[in-house]
Amino acid sequence: MISSVITGTGSYIPSIKKENSLFENNRFLNTDGSAFQNTNTVIIEKFKAITGIEERRYAETKYNASDLGYFAAQKAIEDAGINPEELDYIIVSHNFGDVKDAAIQSDILPSLATRVKYRLGISNPNCVAYDILFGCPGWVEGVIQAQAFIKAKMAKKCLVIGTETLSRVVDKHDRDSMIYSDGAGACIIEAKENSDSAILSHASQTFAKEEAYHLFFGNSYDKNEDPNVRYIKMHGRKIYEFALTNVPQAMKTALDKSGVSIDDVKKVFIHQANEKMDEAIIKRFYRLYKKQAPEGVMPMSIHKLGNSSVATVPTLLDLVLKGQIENQEVQKGDVIIMASVGAGMNINAIVYRY
Amino acid sequence: MISSVITGTGSYIPSIKKENSLFENNRFLNTDGSAFQNTNTVIIEKFKAITGIEERRYAETKYNASDLGYFAAQKAIEDAGINPEELDYIIVSHNFGDVKDAAIQSDILPSLATRVKYRLGISNPNCVAYDILFGCPGWVEGVIQAQAFIKAKMAKKCLVIGTETLSRVVDKHDRDSMIYSDGAGACIIEAKENSDSAILSHASQTFAKEEAYHLFFGNSYDKNEDPNVRYIKMHGRKIYEFALTNVPQAMKTALDKSGVSIDDVKKVFIHQANEKMDEAIIKRFYRLYKKQAPEGVMPMSIHKLGNSSVATVPTLLDLVLKGQIENQEVQKGDVIIMASVGAGMNINAIVYRY
Repeated sequence: MISSVITGTGSYIPSIKKENSLFENNRFLNTDGSAFQNTNTVIIEKFKAITGIEERRYAETKYNASDLGYFAAQKAIEDAGINPEELDYIIVSHNFGDVKDAAIQSDILPSLATRVKYRLGISNPNCVAYDILFGCPGWVEGVIQAQAFIKAKMAKKCLVIGTETLSRVVDKHDRDSMIYSDGAGACIIEAKENSDSAILSHASQTFAKEEAYHLFFGNSYDKNEDPNVRYIKMHGRKIYEFALTNVPQAMKTALDKSGVSIDDVKKVFIHQANEKMDEAIIKRFYRLYKKQAPEGVMPMSIHKLGNSSVATVPTLLDLVLKGQIENQEVQKGDVIIMASVGAGMNINAIVYRY
Repeated sequence: MISSVITGTGSYIPSIKKENSLFENNRFLNTDGSAFQNTNTVIIEKFKAITGIEERRYAETKYNASDLGYFAAQKAIEDAGINPEELDYIIVSHNFGDVKDAAIQSDILPSLATRVKYRLGISNPNCVAYDILFGCPGWVEGVIQAQAFIKAKMAKKCLVIGTETLSRVVDKHDRDSMIYSDGAGACIIEAKENSDSAILSHASQTFAKEEAYHLFFGNSYDKNEDPNVRYIKMHGRKIYEFALTNVPQAMKTALDKSGVSIDDVKKVFIHQANEKMDEAIIKRFYRLYKKQAPEGVMPMSIHKLGNSSVATVPTLLDLVLKGQIENQEVQKGDVIIMASVGAGMNINAIVYRY
């Protein structure tokens, strides 16, 4: 029996630290372009109370998303101890491609996967490099696709990267701009015979009725801006409700398929979108089993790293595995869940035994 | 034994016909911004002699790439006679996302697959919709991925779409702008037990050494234009040489894996990039078997449709299957090859028995 095993992880945390106080002088506007009644100090305090975000990271202007992805990939390859020439697939998830600092165009030609392969210097043409667009759950979905190639005997070693520079696509007049950050995470998935470690099950969904445009590319709230220039935009309240309704159920679907008891789940790595939302998701997930969420079951990085989209789950996993998050660890044999939700609206979850 | 079977195809050919003569008044420039010695009449004649392109199609301004993809998808679904709610995957390949007319940004949030699913009105959340970026071979690669999901028992019915509006990303000062066109093609792939029709084999490659940037996003040849605005650009001569060296070999790899004799190949559907290049590829492919390419083995649509990137192969296949290309047909039992090459640089080939 062939299993899909995570043999290495890596992440890249950009060096520019942006504290909440740096947004004190932004001119935040309502959707209709009107000013807020509250001062920015109050707006920022409320923002922090809900999202948990105190600071976030931005990439240096000389780096684009593909560079960040390359840095994370290098570490994952080193961690796995593999020869990159042996890779069968490089799968890169993102949502905006390479957006140069001060430019507004997404550069996705060639694909970011090609750029990463180029920077890794891989000569083997049978290492197939492609990008997937699947909202914030793109990295988790990339892992699911790697597993499909392994199951179909089309691959033995895959590199899966999530990388994003959301700082390049934010409307500075939108309070939500404070949520977004830059980052990259990666892992190596290998086919192994008779391995205890393995992806045990997964669930993956796309909700594309009215939810399709909960996250979208839209105009600045400053009505004087060029209507042809668009930014990442979201209907936060609707996403919150959508996530609470659907994410716990998707996680349950995956866990029930795995045959693992809820009591044997050691950690749940959830997309770092919003602390209050993540807490409500985990609470509801356990409630589906008539249980309370155990203390510390959900490691968090959002306070210091913000929401870096596809990068949050692999970065958080890497940080915990490397002992870089206080009081959090994963031991050999532990069952973990990785789950995400985002633009699409897409939801997915993987149950994995370490 | 489960096979991956194409049960329906569809294509959308945009309504705006652009003849070569419409480029008579363009101010074409060399890479360095200097003017050409030749008149546009001569430039256009040479262009036609090499590429075979007499006219190309552009999408109406009200439509974006996702709309074109939706139109092609509708036809493929109808052709296959399936209920779209039964789809397990919607895979959309493109290279620039939705680029609104007169805007310069790629809109890929949400993914085009979500937009197509939204327009198809599919409620089933277990129909997973994602985009892949893999250069012009994206649609062929989407079919390969659908096959992986079928082999891994993760899917029974997949919709694979290739859609592009290259007319929205061209530099009008670049002669190569005459190559590009808009279009969309789609197919339904189903898992079938004991089917004679099946994907027999495939090959897929990414060359990402110096070839990585043979196709890229670059500045206008008009040096007075904003350097932050970029367009589709290519090193045509290098691509030509690259393709001639590598595509015939990839096709041979796929054919040899299938166990089918070269003499039993009825049709070869090659990405419509450039007529002279395609003719040279097919000649070299047959030469690898010490054979001459049979008359009519390679259907062509480039003369009237130009190069619509990911859309060329599925569109050409659909046109031949529907009897819309003179003296070309595919019969039940025929073995065909579908092959593509493009940005990445990516190459792939599928051997399929109808």
